[in-house]
Amino acid sequence: MFSEADFTHMQRALALAARGMYTTTPNPRVGCVLIKDDVTIGEGFTQPAGQDHAEVQALKDARRRGFDPRGATAYVTLEPCSHFGRTPPCAHALIDAQVKRVIAAMEDPNPQVSGRGLAMLRDAGIDVRCGLLANEARELNIGFVSRMTRARPWVRMKIAGSLDGRTALPSGESQWITGAAARADGHAWRARACAILTGIGTVREDDPQLTVREVETPRQPLRVLIDSRLEVPLTAKLLEGAPPLVFCARIDDTNAARAEALAARGVEIVELANERGKVDLAAMLKTLGARGINELHVEAGHKLNGSLLREGCVDELLVYLAPSLLGANSAGMFDLPAPAALEARTQLTFHAIERIGDDLRILARLQQQAAHT
Amino acid sequence: MFSEADFTHMQRALALAARGMYTTTPNPRVGCVLIKDDVTIGEGFTQPAGQDHAEVQALKDARRRGFDPRGATAYVTLEPCSHFGRTPPCAHALIDAQVKRVIAAMEDPNPQVSGRGLAMLRDAGIDVRCGLLANEARELNIGFVSRMTRARPWVRMKIAGSLDGRTALPSGESQWITGAAARADGHAWRARACAILTGIGTVREDDPQLTVREVETPRQPLRVLIDSRLEVPLTAKLLEGAPPLVFCARIDDTNAARAEALAARGVEIVELANERGKVDLAAMLKTLGARGINELHVEAGHKLNGSLLREGCVDELLVYLAPSLLGANSAGMFDLPAPAALEARTQLTFHAIERIGDDLRILARLQQQAAHT
Repeated sequence: MFSEADFTHMQRALALAARGMYTTTPNPRVGCVLIKDDVTIGEGFTQPAGQDHAEVQALKDARRRGFDPRGATAYVTLEPCSHFGRTPPCAHALIDAQVKRVIAAMEDPNPQVSGRGLAMLRDAGIDVRCGLLANEARELNIGFVSRMTRARPWVRMKIAGSLDGRTALPSGESQWITGAAARADGHAWRARACAILTGIGTVREDDPQLTVREVETPRQPLRVLIDSRLEVPLTAKLLEGAPPLVFCARIDDTNAARAEALAARGVEIVELANERGKVDLAAMLKTLGARGINELHVEAGHKLNGSLLREGCVDELLVYLAPSLLGANSAGMFDLPAPAALEARTQLTFHAIERIGDDLRILARLQQQAAHT
Repeated sequence: MFSEADFTHMQRALALAARGMYTTTPNPRVGCVLIKDDVTIGEGFTQPAGQDHAEVQALKDARRRGFDPRGATAYVTLEPCSHFGRTPPCAHALIDAQVKRVIAAMEDPNPQVSGRGLAMLRDAGIDVRCGLLANEARELNIGFVSRMTRARPWVRMKIAGSLDGRTALPSGESQWITGAAARADGHAWRARACAILTGIGTVREDDPQLTVREVETPRQPLRVLIDSRLEVPLTAKLLEGAPPLVFCARIDDTNAARAEALAARGVEIVELANERGKVDLAAMLKTLGARGINELHVEAGHKLNGSLLREGCVDELLVYLAPSLLGANSAGMFDLPAPAALEARTQLTFHAIERIGDDLRILARLQQQAAHT
């Protein structure tokens, strides 16, 4: 159904889409290639929100280069949008440009609009096909797909530990278990996320900035803090720069003054208690989804890590294993109770394994996430 | 210095050597290829101890095929032996056959005889070169090299655990954390070892046979048990089949009767106490080295694993990580105390990483083993 050339052009469109890795949020990363008479006449990828989508960029690029897009084939990594948002629908732009064929990698994951853009193109007499390199396209927008289909972000939990599964010495010392290359790689994963989440325990122990520093990015992700009793010190590094979003269980007499002091610093506080007086983590994910957070990057301690896992709020583990042993009395990865029997253990699949410097990077996905949604 | 053809022929010799993976012990795995006028005229690899070495096999093979080895080049993965052992020296055989050139991957690792075989060949007017694919050749005989240079086996500790570094539930349940492919792979590593070591704790908890079953092998490794107080039950599966070698701290009034009963079953018992009344692990390695054990495969519990690590008796970890989480109160990999500071942690290097079925196999080597020898 698809030719070798189709495959090559879609790969190029995916590579273009990936250029928007740190910038398109909350929009998906999309790439577009226009081919006419076997010549690439235009290329584009989604610009920051409110600016051009990939298709419009590619059409502009073609005209700038002096090509007429009429009769061309458009390769797009996601179904062209059919609705007026901050920009006019891309399907219109392709129809107006009189392209002959559109090949899309995947349909829009939003079940409410899925297929409409393609139908609009077909109604205009354009030859439309869909499904080329769909898996690759879905991976590129795994967070957007999650938000559209589950109304919550894709949650990626980063952990750096030793081969024996330990993340800190009994003294709390944990910097640096992994090497410089793994730390820089970790910042690239931070950069692609819409938000970075941590807990009050980590703020107390490590006082992290949680900013992207080791890779270049034009945009810093939103920082999110889970702090049930609103105990974050006003001197925390997390409060420097753009104010973070703080989830607490509730504001009452015990912490109203602190809440006010934080609000004066521009910090937005969301009250979201569960029946145990802690932050309701699943509800928090819904809130972040509603705010356009596609990928949520978690860097927390073993307590919050354990809570997120227990409450079904993790989709993927990003584990850096260092070539070292820290010993049995060092801290583990998560406060997670052992199951009663092996059959009940938390099951993962190893999605991708790579060496990063002297360390090993393991991307492992939680199985049966469907049960939690 | 070496041509493309030399490289190809030595790779073939290494592949032949690997055919002796389960059989040559205590001799090294060696392969030999004879090339004359760009034609392979003979091939061989080391046969079980007391039978032909690779060079003699290759010469016989050439003659059987009707070729005259005079003027040929011999590619051998290890320096031909120069001494009369259970077989006459291979250097003699090559000289008698009047080969013209010998290319060896590496010198004999035994510092007492290293270089003598090559010198003998040179003295006979043969063009001799050494060092082609030396690293690959050394890896193939890592245990033989260890025994020749350090008088102790290469110790490989196998561990099967979850991604969070846990090897058994609090209940003791550990079968099966990893999948069938990893278990079969583990048997291939057992098969290549000269001996398989376990401790009395594992015998009590799992009652393993410690035989090679999931891959075909003409030879079962020697089974070795560490049992300080000689508590192994006479019903243990380990006592079935060829009797194991048992190391205890000492035989005294408390266990003399048990020692006698074991001896009646053909079990050899070695007394080897350290000052704490436990088996002296470093001395045990020397003993095994003296008995011709090249590679020692360890499958023990976290206690013995921890002791072996603490006492510098481990060269390599063979870790199978399953895509699952077992939780913080499940058993860890080793009873190893945390270091006071990160600088003092046990340092490894990741030697090889591979996916085995759904699991991950990590071969990690202990750093600074030299300090322990």
